[in-house]
Amino acid sequence: MTRLYVGLDVGGSAMKAGVVDDEGHARPSVTLPTEAHRGQEAGLARMCETIRAAVSSAGVTMADIASIGVATPGLMDLKAGLITDPVNLRPWKNVPVRDHVMAAFGKPTAFQNDANAAALGECWAGAGKGAESLVFYTLGTGVGGGIVIGGRVIEGRNSNGGELGHVRIEMTNPRPCGCGRLGCLEAYAGAMSIVKRTHEALNADGGKSSLHGVLQTHGEMSARDVFTAWSAGDELAGRIVEETAFYLAIGAANAMHAIDPDMVVFGGGLTAAGEPFLERIKHHVKSLAFPLPAERTPIRYAMLGTDAGFIGAACCARQLVTR
Amino acid sequence: MTRLYVGLDVGGSAMKAGVVDDEGHARPSVTLPTEAHRGQEAGLARMCETIRAAVSSAGVTMADIASIGVATPGLMDLKAGLITDPVNLRPWKNVPVRDHVMAAFGKPTAFQNDANAAALGECWAGAGKGAESLVFYTLGTGVGGGIVIGGRVIEGRNSNGGELGHVRIEMTNPRPCGCGRLGCLEAYAGAMSIVKRTHEALNADGGKSSLHGVLQTHGEMSARDVFTAWSAGDELAGRIVEETAFYLAIGAANAMHAIDPDMVVFGGGLTAAGEPFLERIKHHVKSLAFPLPAERTPIRYAMLGTDAGFIGAACCARQLVTR
Repeated sequence: MTRLYVGLDVGGSAMKAGVVDDEGHARPSVTLPTEAHRGQEAGLARMCETIRAAVSSAGVTMADIASIGVATPGLMDLKAGLITDPVNLRPWKNVPVRDHVMAAFGKPTAFQNDANAAALGECWAGAGKGAESLVFYTLGTGVGGGIVIGGRVIEGRNSNGGELGHVRIEMTNPRPCGCGRLGCLEAYAGAMSIVKRTHEALNADGGKSSLHGVLQTHGEMSARDVFTAWSAGDELAGRIVEETAFYLAIGAANAMHAIDPDMVVFGGGLTAAGEPFLERIKHHVKSLAFPLPAERTPIRYAMLGTDAGFIGAACCARQLVTR
Repeated sequence: MTRLYVGLDVGGSAMKAGVVDDEGHARPSVTLPTEAHRGQEAGLARMCETIRAAVSSAGVTMADIASIGVATPGLMDLKAGLITDPVNLRPWKNVPVRDHVMAAFGKPTAFQNDANAAALGECWAGAGKGAESLVFYTLGTGVGGGIVIGGRVIEGRNSNGGELGHVRIEMTNPRPCGCGRLGCLEAYAGAMSIVKRTHEALNADGGKSSLHGVLQTHGEMSARDVFTAWSAGDELAGRIVEETAFYLAIGAANAMHAIDPDMVVFGGGLTAAGEPFLERIKHHVKSLAFPLPAERTPIRYAMLGTDAGFIGAACCARQLVTR
């Protein structure tokens, strides 16, 4: 009989939890608002509430659950099971997530970074199914990452493993990154930097791009608008998207020369740009990477969408109690 | 009683082998010329000869040896145990190193990339003793690398794991790399690129640097000359060395954000530049890396010198027969 695990993915606005079996199949998940502003005690209570709701939603009881996994964003101490300083969960600070959940349910409880969990989820039950190793980029406002080797997340000595958005790719003219450093991949390829780069290009464009119209109509512009304009043939948008694909291809090729994983997977909101965008990334990897990975290593979009985090958290839970 | 292993490190000009025990202690090693020009059959025979000589030199017999490990340079297929196309071992091609050595001695035989083996050797018995994970850069003509996680080498799907000299760090004005790509770390921080960058600087220097004298006297200049001039206070050499430290610090910080290892170790000929150079690398890492690794992660020179390769090869041999 298959065992069951609960995975919980805590995000800045919502928490998602679900029961997952030994094959990585998820039962219907539940989503509740995070409401971080109510403070971390309320947040911890909401985590437990979401876990209980997921168990109900799966039609089982807590006695059927072997272990629990929780994934969160923010600076954290994975060994201690703490979120230390979560930008997206203000005013939380030094939240003992793992110990709280473990005490609440009396079950072995795993704690993981959300991007790492998503990487593991994709490797276990998504785009990377069957892969032993995988490098995962999550493309949202910023660029997150996770590395799985031998089926395990690379957590790192300081819980900084897989921070692939903050690998530096430029020295001469480095863009400032939200992390306070210079020239990070995120400063080039995150949605926020795509918008910034597009604004810069529009300032020098003499009014030709259709994106001027978007700005006039809406007063602002998103990365999605840029991709939409690209699909419609806008030249400036095309240049921005092509550069973005090039930057991500540098990330992928660098991963191939450091880790040489079985697969590189891109997830997150930007993947809504669809297969044509992935094709441009692959195109650039062909010239940037060594011959063998360039030719052989699959580059794919993630398959689990916003379920990757809780499924990966459940995988961490499973790894706690399985060998 | 401790078991014994033989490690063999095959280089472009010489092979070095030694017997190593379970604690990573090496008996007196032997070195024989590689003489690659005599062809790969002669090369394989020389490998076996060096292994036998190492066993004699250790005062034991082949019956005392549990397993054998061989490390080589060049493009390779680690899973198949082949050197496929070794630049430094012309005219060798598709050399079945592992199977040949295994058949010759009837012992379990491991095969590894030389920089990976050196990384493992340092992790097991050198600068990284006690570390679970380590990122290793070897600074010679080029820049090699090796990653150890959980005491194991990251070999990669295509045997390209740990090729850290070919992680791209520049987009705007990338230097061409010996590998045919652009902007690789090696194109900035290898000895060959240090000499090239120094020549460029001398051309624009108006005759001030003491290195003009070195060039006039010897007709050429080495990276060692640049470091010597730096130690003597030469301003141009100081600029080149400072930039080199910055480039290597980018490599170290990128490793800290991807792998977040227990330790970063620099080995190879350039480490002859001594502690003052390492201090400059550490200085730049402080501002390039995230706070925790910047503060906590040790950055050290390798300790095993040219023994790292065969000791690491012996460690691979040991891992074949130990759990």
